[in-house]
Amino acid sequence: MILYELDGRDGRRFSPYCWRTDMALHHKGLAAERRTVGFADKSPLDFTDYKKVPVLVDDDRTIIESFDIAVYLDEAYPDRPPLMAGPEARGLARFVNEWTDGVINPAIVTMIVADILDDTTEADREHFRTTREARFGCRLEEVCGDRDARLAALDKALDPARATLGKQAYLSGHHPGYADYILFGSLQWARCTSATPLLKAEDPLYAWRGRLLDMFEGYAGKAPGHPV
Amino acid sequence: MILYELDGRDGRRFSPYCWRTDMALHHKGLAAERRTVGFADKSPLDFTDYKKVPVLVDDDRTIIESFDIAVYLDEAYPDRPPLMAGPEARGLARFVNEWTDGVINPAIVTMIVADILDDTTEADREHFRTTREARFGCRLEEVCGDRDARLAALDKALDPARATLGKQAYLSGHHPGYADYILFGSLQWARCTSATPLLKAEDPLYAWRGRLLDMFEGYAGKAPGHPV
Repeated sequence: MILYELDGRDGRRFSPYCWRTDMALHHKGLAAERRTVGFADKSPLDFTDYKKVPVLVDDDRTIIESFDIAVYLDEAYPDRPPLMAGPEARGLARFVNEWTDGVINPAIVTMIVADILDDTTEADREHFRTTREARFGCRLEEVCGDRDARLAALDKALDPARATLGKQAYLSGHHPGYADYILFGSLQWARCTSATPLLKAEDPLYAWRGRLLDMFEGYAGKAPGHPV
Repeated sequence: MILYELDGRDGRRFSPYCWRTDMALHHKGLAAERRTVGFADKSPLDFTDYKKVPVLVDDDRTIIESFDIAVYLDEAYPDRPPLMAGPEARGLARFVNEWTDGVINPAIVTMIVADILDDTTEADREHFRTTREARFGCRLEEVCGDRDARLAALDKALDPARATLGKQAYLSGHHPGYADYILFGSLQWARCTSATPLLKAEDPLYAWRGRLLDMFEGYAGKAPGHPV
């Protein structure tokens, strides 16, 4: 298996979607060769029309989109621990996916996008700034203004996950599942790029993230980034 | 089985939590005798210290809190169709529960609370107004001001469910499950009390709600309320 992932400076890995897939592969006990793709130079993906990472190649199959990769892994490797145990869990994990993509990631990106710039490779920096400033309609440094208000908004947006984790160990119940990796990927994206702490130590989300950082022999916790 | 539910004028049933349980009982194919409880007069619940509906009594057991009632029904009646198929679906349904309670219900209540007042029984009206105005800190009619802005905020808050239903028939995947009844209960609460349409006909949520209104021989669709 080959996993195409986003490349950053000094091995910083800051795609929330790639983190989802990376944790999913570990959960399934599957190894993949990592190949990196730049923001500007997408040539490693020349073999496919799709230009967003992660892209997974398994033998003669190419699978795109992180959610579909997770579904693929469960279907292709049914004897390994399920990421989403059955069609109902899969359906509900998709809801967590849409909530994270639509509510949480936008709340995080406005806080960290200027920090991400510092962690892009030299080759990507100008491309990253130009494309992101076009998207936000202002300088990246302005996007991240008023961080306290943005942090409060993120804190409130995370309430449903926080309330859930006040009642059970993981979003997926007693054990971590793909839905946990979805939200974890977003917090890990921030941890890899920004020194701004998003969670307070007394937050149930903080302890939950800590358990995920420790999984797979501390795999995610060892990734280059900032202290949590 | 006896289900204690909230009573309204002319059979209007406007507790989102009771609707969850009611749909759950139908899903399991279980019948319960309905007994009504007023906002002001909770005496039918004198047998328990808990004063919020729904309360389910099954033989010698009393089960409180709508989510715990759903869990109970799956555990006590495992041979009937599951509301939440397995511990992971249950864990994820709890997330939908927390999201609905924390994000969607507060967005709906500010639009419909003055309409609910009209549907309370004569005996409950003053109690309802007094307790709710204390909670909101203003007249109920003021809570519901600027309805267009509130409707837009609800519309945006519903985005994760809308996006999910753009990709699959139900929040729970191919078939409706308890997570669907959770969100449905909130929209049904509004439909039973308020003539304000919350969903546009072209919204995937509109079609999804229509399928739920039609279930169980149109059970929820026949409940006294406003056209959708």
